[in-house]
Amino acid sequence: MRIEKPTLVVDSARVERNIQRMADKAVKSGVVFRPHFKTHQSPVIGEFFRKKGVNKITVSSVDMAFFFAEEGWDDITIAFPVNILQIDRINQLAGMIKLHLLVESTETIRFLADHITDHVSVWIEVDTGQKRSGIDAEDKDSILNCASAIEALKNLSFGGLLTHAGHTYRASSTEEIKRIYADSIKKLNSLRDKLLRKGIKEVKLSVGDTPSCSIVEDLSEADEIRPGNFVYYDLKQLELGSCKEEDIAVAVGCPVVAKCPRRNEVIVYGGAVHLSKEHLVDSRNCKIFGRIAMESGEKWGTVLDDSYVSSLSQEHGVIKTTPEILNQVNRGDILYIIPVHSCLAANLLRDPLILP
Amino acid sequence: MRIEKPTLVVDSARVERNIQRMADKAVKSGVVFRPHFKTHQSPVIGEFFRKKGVNKITVSSVDMAFFFAEEGWDDITIAFPVNILQIDRINQLAGMIKLHLLVESTETIRFLADHITDHVSVWIEVDTGQKRSGIDAEDKDSILNCASAIEALKNLSFGGLLTHAGHTYRASSTEEIKRIYADSIKKLNSLRDKLLRKGIKEVKLSVGDTPSCSIVEDLSEADEIRPGNFVYYDLKQLELGSCKEEDIAVAVGCPVVAKCPRRNEVIVYGGAVHLSKEHLVDSRNCKIFGRIAMESGEKWGTVLDDSYVSSLSQEHGVIKTTPEILNQVNRGDILYIIPVHSCLAANLLRDPLILP
Repeated sequence: MRIEKPTLVVDSARVERNIQRMADKAVKSGVVFRPHFKTHQSPVIGEFFRKKGVNKITVSSVDMAFFFAEEGWDDITIAFPVNILQIDRINQLAGMIKLHLLVESTETIRFLADHITDHVSVWIEVDTGQKRSGIDAEDKDSILNCASAIEALKNLSFGGLLTHAGHTYRASSTEEIKRIYADSIKKLNSLRDKLLRKGIKEVKLSVGDTPSCSIVEDLSEADEIRPGNFVYYDLKQLELGSCKEEDIAVAVGCPVVAKCPRRNEVIVYGGAVHLSKEHLVDSRNCKIFGRIAMESGEKWGTVLDDSYVSSLSQEHGVIKTTPEILNQVNRGDILYIIPVHSCLAANLLRDPLILP
Repeated sequence: MRIEKPTLVVDSARVERNIQRMADKAVKSGVVFRPHFKTHQSPVIGEFFRKKGVNKITVSSVDMAFFFAEEGWDDITIAFPVNILQIDRINQLAGMIKLHLLVESTETIRFLADHITDHVSVWIEVDTGQKRSGIDAEDKDSILNCASAIEALKNLSFGGLLTHAGHTYRASSTEEIKRIYADSIKKLNSLRDKLLRKGIKEVKLSVGDTPSCSIVEDLSEADEIRPGNFVYYDLKQLELGSCKEEDIAVAVGCPVVAKCPRRNEVIVYGGAVHLSKEHLVDSRNCKIFGRIAMESGEKWGTVLDDSYVSSLSQEHGVIKTTPEILNQVNRGDILYIIPVHSCLAANLLRDPLILP
C-alpha cells in the first residue's frame, strides 16, 4: 500500500463486522437503527450501512445533513439543538427529506412555528445526566410544555424524547455503563408515562451513545438507537470496554521522518491537524495521544505494548518506544497510530484509504 | 455581520499591527523575516505580509508549500524534517521555487543526494532543548558530519542551522523565555564557530518561536526569524506574556443554541472540529478550552472575566458563565470564543471572515 502522508486507513472487514453486530442487536431488540454518521462522514462508509439495510441516519450539523441528503439519504436526524440562524438551510432540507430536529426550549419551538415552511419531526432533547445540552430529565414540566407546544403546531410533529447519555464516556467500568444506561432509560420511560398521561399521543424514545449500545445486550426499552463511533471504535472505546482491539477499524498511517536514539523516540509526520489533541491518561499518569502498530501485510498489526504517542504539535507526532523498535524503524517507514478518538481523526483526514 | 455557523473572524487592523511590529523588529535586528504561514494558511493574510515587504516564507508541509507556491511565493522553507516518501512532490517544488529543506540525519542527506533533481538549500535542524525533532545541540559531531555531507553534494547547498525553541511554550515567565532564547542562540553560535573552524564556508542561524520573537527585543544574533503564531496570537500567547489581549486578532464566532440556567451554562455551536481540543489549565486547576467575548460593534469586545469554555465535544461548546450573562444571552446570538491555539482553530476554519 502506498502512503506518502498521514492517511486514515480503514479496515473494511472490521467495519462490516461492527455494523453487522450493531444491526443484529437492533433487530433482536426491536429498535430502529439510525446510526450517527458524524464518525465517518464518508459516502463510501455510508454505502456499507446501506448494504446492511440501514435507511435512516443521524448527523450532527445542517451541513452534514445536506451532504448526506445529496448522497441519497432521505430520513435524517440532526442530533444537535436547532441553530435558529440556519433556518433557511433547515427549510431547504425540510423540502428535500424527512427531517428530524432537536429542541430544548419553547423559545426555539416558537421560532420554528413562525419560520418553518415544510413539515418536520421535532424531538425534545433530554439530559439524563451527561450535563451538556438538553432539558434536565427532572424538569418534567418544561418537557411537557415543549411536547404540548410541538403537538399544537402545524408543520411540526412530535417525534419523542431523545438523549445522548454521554456520561458513559466518564464511566470506570462496563458495570457503570450498564447502570448509566438503565438509569437513563428509566428516566425517559418515566417522562414518557407522564406525557402519555397528559394526553400526548405517541412518545418514541431515542438513545445513542456507543458505550451503552455496545455493552448493554438488550436495548428493547428504547425505540431507536443512534450510535456512531462503533463503526470504527478507538482507544477510548477500548479503555471503556466497548470493543476489543480487533474491532478497531481505523488507524492513521504516518511516515517516519526522524529518530532520536537518545530518548528512544521516533518522530512521524502526523500531528494535531491529523489526529486532534484528544488524549487518554494511563495508569502511570502519562498522556497518551495514540498507540502504535507496525505494518503487517496490507494492514496494521497488533498494538505495541511499550510504544505510544507522547506528544503532538501541529504536524509532528512524537512516539516513545523501545531501543529494539527504534532500531527496526527507518525514516520512510510507515507507522500506524491507533487514534484516541476516531471521530475527530476521521473529521481531519477526509480521504480515507479503504482496505478490503 | 452575518454569522450562521462557527466562523473564524479576523481583525485586520490587529493583524497588520502584529505584522508591522515583527517586521520592524526584524529590520532593527538586521535579520531576515521569514514568517511561518502554518498559522493562517490563508492567501488573503499572505497578501498582508506581502504589502509589508515580506517575500520569504516558512510552511510546515509539502502540501502547504505547493499551496503558497501557486499563490506566487517563490522562496519557501519547509520547516519539518524531510519526508522522503514525498520526494516526487519535493522535486516538483524544487523546479518551481527556491526551496529550503530541513534534515536531521546523514541518512536523509544521502537519500536527497540520490534522488533530488534540482537545486535545494538544506538546513540542519538543531534541537536546543525542545526535545521534538532535530539533532541535539550537544551532538556536535553529528551536526558537523551533516554539514560536511551537504556541502560535498551537488544540487544541495548548506543553508545553516535552524531551530524551533518550542520549549518557550512551557516557560512560566517572560524572564524564562528570555533565558531559553539566550541559551538557544548561544548553542547555535557555538555550533557555528565549530563548523566554520572545520572549514564550512557559511553558516546562517534561523530561529523561530513566537514567544522568543515577541518577548526578546534584540534578535540580531540570529540571521533569520520564522515566527508564525504572532500574526493572530491567542490565549496561550497571552498566558506566556507574548502579547496583550488587544493583540489577539482572531475569535471564533459561535451561534448560541441552548441554555442551561441550572448550571449557568450556555451551549454554542462550536466544538472540537472548529476549535481543536487544545486547552489551558488555570490557577484553580480548571481546563479552559477558550475565553468568551460578546459582540461589540462589528467585532468582539473585551474578554469576559467569569466565563470560559469548560468542555468541547465534536460540535458542542459548553460555556460556564454567570447568571447575569446567561440572562443577557439568547438563542441565536453570537458569542465569540478566543481560541487557546489560533493555529489549530485556523486550520479547522479555512474560510475566515476578515474584518477591516
